[in-house]
Amino acid sequence: MMTRDDCAARDGADPLAPLRQQFGLERVDREGVIYLDGNSLGVLPRATADRVRQVVEEEWGAGLIRSWNQAGWITLSQHIADKIARLVGARPGEVIVADSTSINLYKVLSAAVAIATQTDRRRIVSERTNFPTDLYIADTLARSLGFELVLVEADEIAARLDDRLAILLLTHVNYRTGRMHRMATITRAARDAGALVIWDLAHSAGAMPIDLYAGGAVNAAADFAVGCGYKYLNGGPGAPAFAWAHPRHTARMDKEGWRQPLSGWLGHAAPFEFTPDYRPAPGMARFACGTPPILSLAALECGVDTVLAAEQHGGLSVIRQKSIALAGLFIELVESRCAGHDLTLVTPREPDQRGSQVSFAHETAGYAIMQALIARGVIGDFRAPDILRFGLTPLYTRFVDVWDAVDRLEHVLASGEWREPRFSVRALVT
Amino acid sequence: MMTRDDCAARDGADPLAPLRQQFGLERVDREGVIYLDGNSLGVLPRATADRVRQVVEEEWGAGLIRSWNQAGWITLSQHIADKIARLVGARPGEVIVADSTSINLYKVLSAAVAIATQTDRRRIVSERTNFPTDLYIADTLARSLGFELVLVEADEIAARLDDRLAILLLTHVNYRTGRMHRMATITRAARDAGALVIWDLAHSAGAMPIDLYAGGAVNAAADFAVGCGYKYLNGGPGAPAFAWAHPRHTARMDKEGWRQPLSGWLGHAAPFEFTPDYRPAPGMARFACGTPPILSLAALECGVDTVLAAEQHGGLSVIRQKSIALAGLFIELVESRCAGHDLTLVTPREPDQRGSQVSFAHETAGYAIMQALIARGVIGDFRAPDILRFGLTPLYTRFVDVWDAVDRLEHVLASGEWREPRFSVRALVT
Repeated sequence: MMTRDDCAARDGADPLAPLRQQFGLERVDREGVIYLDGNSLGVLPRATADRVRQVVEEEWGAGLIRSWNQAGWITLSQHIADKIARLVGARPGEVIVADSTSINLYKVLSAAVAIATQTDRRRIVSERTNFPTDLYIADTLARSLGFELVLVEADEIAARLDDRLAILLLTHVNYRTGRMHRMATITRAARDAGALVIWDLAHSAGAMPIDLYAGGAVNAAADFAVGCGYKYLNGGPGAPAFAWAHPRHTARMDKEGWRQPLSGWLGHAAPFEFTPDYRPAPGMARFACGTPPILSLAALECGVDTVLAAEQHGGLSVIRQKSIALAGLFIELVESRCAGHDLTLVTPREPDQRGSQVSFAHETAGYAIMQALIARGVIGDFRAPDILRFGLTPLYTRFVDVWDAVDRLEHVLASGEWREPRFSVRALVT
Repeated sequence: MMTRDDCAARDGADPLAPLRQQFGLERVDREGVIYLDGNSLGVLPRATADRVRQVVEEEWGAGLIRSWNQAGWITLSQHIADKIARLVGARPGEVIVADSTSINLYKVLSAAVAIATQTDRRRIVSERTNFPTDLYIADTLARSLGFELVLVEADEIAARLDDRLAILLLTHVNYRTGRMHRMATITRAARDAGALVIWDLAHSAGAMPIDLYAGGAVNAAADFAVGCGYKYLNGGPGAPAFAWAHPRHTARMDKEGWRQPLSGWLGHAAPFEFTPDYRPAPGMARFACGTPPILSLAALECGVDTVLAAEQHGGLSVIRQKSIALAGLFIELVESRCAGHDLTLVTPREPDQRGSQVSFAHETAGYAIMQALIARGVIGDFRAPDILRFGLTPLYTRFVDVWDAVDRLEHVLASGEWREPRFSVRALVT
C-alpha cells in the first residue's frame, strides 16, 4: 500500500515538478486547498497578473488605440492560435483563437453541414453524454438546415458509421466520465464510411499529446476541431476558444469563396478597407468574427505558455504519463481507502481509455459529499445526477496532493459530515 | 474668436468636469496626448486596473472555480446588462451582455428574420456606409435564408419603407460621418410601414440619452438593438457587447419556444442540469451562448460605471449637451484656423443630426495628415478613403483639449510636415 512518503518520493522524481513554479499557488497551498478542478478552470499562471496589468495600464491606459498596432493586439489572436496549433498537431495558420467553444462549434459545424449538403447524407451523430452545449448548438443547426441529430451511447457509435452519416461530432474526453475516444481509430472508421469528423478538444487539449493529422495515416486526419482556453490551457475564466479545419477544407473554401455564417469584419480579407461587400479572408482566418476581448486574450497566452513550457521537460507525452500515474494513484487510493462508502468508478480503468480526470458516482449523495469535501479544502466538482469529478492536472498537481485529497475524502465519508444539511444547499453553479 | 482662456473658462463651468477624475489620465496628460478616439476605444477608467487585478489574483487565483458562485461570475453578465439597460431606456432583464456586437447582431437579426418569414416580406434595408461588420453579418444571413439585403444612402431610406421591407437595420450614429439618425422618427415610419427595426448603438450608447421605447410613443419603440462595450462605455479593448429585444418579441419567443441559432448552454433554461435537450431560457436570457470572458467582462462593468456616474451630474442629457458644445467648438475652430487646407466638414453641422464625433475629409492626404497629427500627440483616426475622425467624449474631453488639438492640427497643416514620407506608411490598423 502506497504511503504519503512514497508519494513525496514520486514528486521528487517527477520531471515536471519544476513546472509547478509557473503558477502562483502559494496562497492556495497556504490555505490547504488541493485543487482538482483544473479540468473545469485551470489555475492562475504566475505570469498572468503582470501581463494583464501591462495590457490594462500600459497598453490600454497609455497606448490607447495605438496598441492595436504598437502592442500587437491585432495579431494577438493568431499569435496565440499558432502556439495552440503546436499542442494539437496542427500547423501555423490552421488554428484560430476567437469567441467561445460553442460559437466556434457553430462555425465549423456550419462548414461541415455545407460540405455534407452536397451529398444525400443528412445525419449528425453525437454522444448523448457529450457536453450539452455541443448538443444544443448541433441540434438547433440541424433543425434549421434539414439535418437530424442522432444521439447514441459511446459503444453504439461504431454501428452508426453508415452511409447515412454526414457528420460525427464527438468530444475527445467526456466531461462527465473522463472516458477518452480513440481519436485516430474512430476518425478513420468514420471517414472510411464517408463522413466528416469534428472533435471537441475541450477536455483534452493541454493534458495530452493530440495529433489531428494522426501522424499522416491514410484517411485518419480529422476534418474540424474546436477547443477551450480555460481548462487545461489555464487561460482564465471564459478565455477565448479555438478552432481548426483541415487545410483540404479551407483550400476548397478559398476556391469556392465560401463564407462561414458569422461573417464579421475580422474574418474579412481586408477588414480595414471597410468595404460594404464581404470577402472572406483566406484559409482559417475567415472563421474570425468580431473584435476579441484583449484582456482575456492576453491571459490566455500566459496559460498556453505554461503548457508549452513542458516542451523543455519532455513535452506533452511526459504530461500524459504523469496524468496517467496521478489518475491511477487516485483510483487505487479511493478504491482501497474509501471502500464501503458506495463510490463507483465511472472513468475507465484502462489508462488509454481515459483523459486526465477521474469520476466516481455516488447514487444518492454525490452533491453533498462534494460540498463537504470542498469545505475540507479539496476542490473537485459535481455533475448531476451523481458524478463526483476530480481533475488531475500534471503541470501543478502533485502525487502528495492526490494522497491528501483521498485522505480527506475518506475522512468526509467515514465521519459522515457530508450529512450536515448545509452541504445539500445547491449553489447556482454546481 | 474663442481663445484658449475662454475654453479654460468653459471647463471651469462644466458640471461634468469632476467626472474626468474617474480616468487614469495623468500619464496621457503628462505625455501631452490629446485623445480624440474614444469613439473607437474609450480610455481606461481608474477603477479598472484594481478591479481586474482583484479578478485575476483574488477571484481566479485564490477563489478558483468557487468564484463562479462566490464572486458572482455567473450573474456578472446580467448585472452589467441591467446597468446598460439604464443607458438605453430599457428595463432590467431586457438587455444581455455577451459575445461581440457582430455576433449579437447575428442573433437578433436571426430573430427578426424568423418573424419576417411569417410574412411575404423578404427585404432587409441598411445604409451602404453602415459599419461593415453589420453589412457582412446581414448579407450572409440574408443569402442563406432567402432574403435580400438592399443598401442605400441615408437620404434614400424613407423611400424604401414600403410593403417589401421586412427589416430596417441601421446604426444610430454613422461610424464614418458621425451623422445621427432620428431614431424615434425613423422607427415609427418603418413600423408604420409594417417593418421591424434593429438599431446598432455602437457609436451612441454612453454618449447621449437613448430611449429604445421612444417615451412610449405609439409604434415608435424599436424592435431590437445591439451595441458595443468598448467605445463610449469605456469597457476596454474588445469588451463584450450587448443586445436588446422588445419584450413583445421575447414574450412571443417564450410562447413559441423559439431558439436563437447560437443556442449555447448559457442560454439554456437550466444550464447546470446538463440535459441533452435544449430548452431556451425565458425572455432575453436565451440570447446568451457560451461562457463569457470574465476578465474583459469585469473591466466592462468599470467602464459602464463611469457613464452611470454622470447620473449624479445631470445624467446623459448633460453629457449630450457637452458633446454638442465640444463638437461645435471643434468645427468652429477647424473651419476658422485651418481654412485653406482642403478640409471639408463631413459631419452634419446641425447638432441634432450628429453624434459625438466630428469627421473632416481630405481628398488626397487624409491618412498622412492624421499620422502627422498623432505624432504631435493628437490621437484621432483615419477611415479610408479620406476621413479624419475625431471623437469627443464628454466624460473626459475638455474644451482646452479641443483648442489644443486644433492648434496642433493647424501646425501640422501649415508646416506641411505631414508630407514627410514616414507619415504615409500604412499600419495594420488604420
